Amino acid sequence: MPLDTDLSPPVHVTSEALLRLRPVGGAADEEVAVELPVALTVNGVSQAVMLATPADLEDFALGFALSEGWIAQPGELLDIEVDATRVDGIELALRVTAAREQGLKLRRRQLAGRTGCGLCGLESLADFASLQPAPVQALAVDVEALARAMAALPGAQVLNARCGGLHGAAWCAPDGRLLLAREDVGRHNALDKLLGARARLQPPAGPGFVAMSSRASHELVHKAAMARVGLLACVSAPTSLAIATAQQLGLQLWAFVREGRATRYA
Amino acid sequence: MPLDTDLSPPVHVTSEALLRLRPVGGAADEEVAVELPVALTVNGVSQAVMLATPADLEDFALGFALSEGWIAQPGELLDIEVDATRVDGIELALRVTAAREQGLKLRRRQLAGRTGCGLCGLESLADFASLQPAPVQALAVDVEALARAMAALPGAQVLNARCGGLHGAAWCAPDGRLLLAREDVGRHNALDKLLGARARLQPPAGPGFVAMSSRASHELVHKAAMARVGLLACVSAPTSLAIATAQQLGLQLWAFVREGRATRYA
Repeated sequence: MPLDTDLSPPVHVTSEALLRLRPVGGAADEEVAVELPVALTVNGVSQAVMLATPADLEDFALGFALSEGWIAQPGELLDIEVDATRVDGIELALRVTAAREQGLKLRRRQLAGRTGCGLCGLESLADFASLQPAPVQALAVDVEALARAMAALPGAQVLNARCGGLHGAAWCAPDGRLLLAREDVGRHNALDKLLGARARLQPPAGPGFVAMSSRASHELVHKAAMARVGLLACVSAPTSLAIATAQQLGLQLWAFVREGRATRYA
Repeated sequence: MPLDTDLSPPVHVTSEALLRLRPVGGAADEEVAVELPVALTVNGVSQAVMLATPADLEDFALGFALSEGWIAQPGELLDIEVDATRVDGIELALRVTAAREQGLKLRRRQLAGRTGCGLCGLESLADFASLQPAPVQALAVDVEALARAMAALPGAQVLNARCGGLHGAAWCAPDGRLLLAREDVGRHNALDKLLGARARLQPPAGPGFVAMSSRASHELVHKAAMARVGLLACVSAPTSLAIATAQQLGLQLWAFVREGRATRYA
């Protein structure tokens, strides 16, 4: 059953994303954001478990597959099956082309033995350096467009407005209009969902930029570049590595986009 | 060289945690939080790479080793060597007892082939369910103490006050006094650093609770429980899984601890 929120174009949510519960000693129920283990398998083989909010999971699967380099084109993801019947979480079963499955198997063998945390299970610094997306095309956008997008973003964060605790990511036209928005308890998941939804657009997405409700970390710059997005605008502070990565990839990085202020770091 | 900040008891920072740079078209330098790949090896074998802020790295190594269950007692971590000479990041070389190395090798074999992201490289939902800390002892703390701790937390976030973008975690006495505080661009890293610093305390830490500047996610509840902390207070919203995990483990979870408000969810 859809939530009784305004489902205007950029926003798409499902009721599974929120849970009603009574706080200890509380007088009334409250809504909280759902966070669940979401396991991704590719052609039957387990690949990753992420903690995510169960909304827009097909977008998440496609965006994650693109961000991780499991596939290079949306068309290489043949099918997504969402299994929400398990008690221990949700399973997203991805089916990719035979050529991609082959590449994934080779990569898997190289990664055997990894027990890392974060960074996609990377285990060594050499692994980290090897994950480099191609340079992207920067976009000429004026500061007013960034401010317009950021001012519109809270209105598109319909889940966050209800219970807090979720990040929002939006795909914006060069003039700052919000075209798509997605939410998740994890900022990286919110971006993966958005990039997945964007990859599905027909006709394909034109020029534009990504606006995010969070700080600007390395992982966001990396994911944006994997999707060939040339400009990332964040409401909060950047990190040193986000700036360095953006500089290397030619991605325009704006941070502190709020209260009439916006600073360009790359 | 230490930063020219007030290094009063709960706070410990190093200058490597911040970087000065000039924004594009900017008139003056700004400080940004450093985010770097930090690789952890145990007895010479690579285990994980995390993106973290290079301050209090010995605390981070100890806290991470405890949170991940690599060791059960601080004494089992015999030595930490910090190699900051590499160009691609920082390496933390941990040396653990022979008994712990043996256990880690067995676990490694079981995990062979994992390429997961987040959740310590977990690959399947079954792996996720198997990572359960023992129940903890809840603590009787009044709401005023929680409010006092949260009001004091921003003052202990000395790095965040300079450049934004960092989370803070504090270990607090039952009356709300801050005893220790640590910062990082990642909230989970900030908590690992805090738990590592707390594990080092001589005499050992007495009763108390953890206050955090972030939302209350599953990973924070899990890490707190691994360190046998009975109460976690967060400034922002909880997630459903954080609440469920806290309920299971007997951990008292407070969220929205701000503006004279505090809600207990478990």
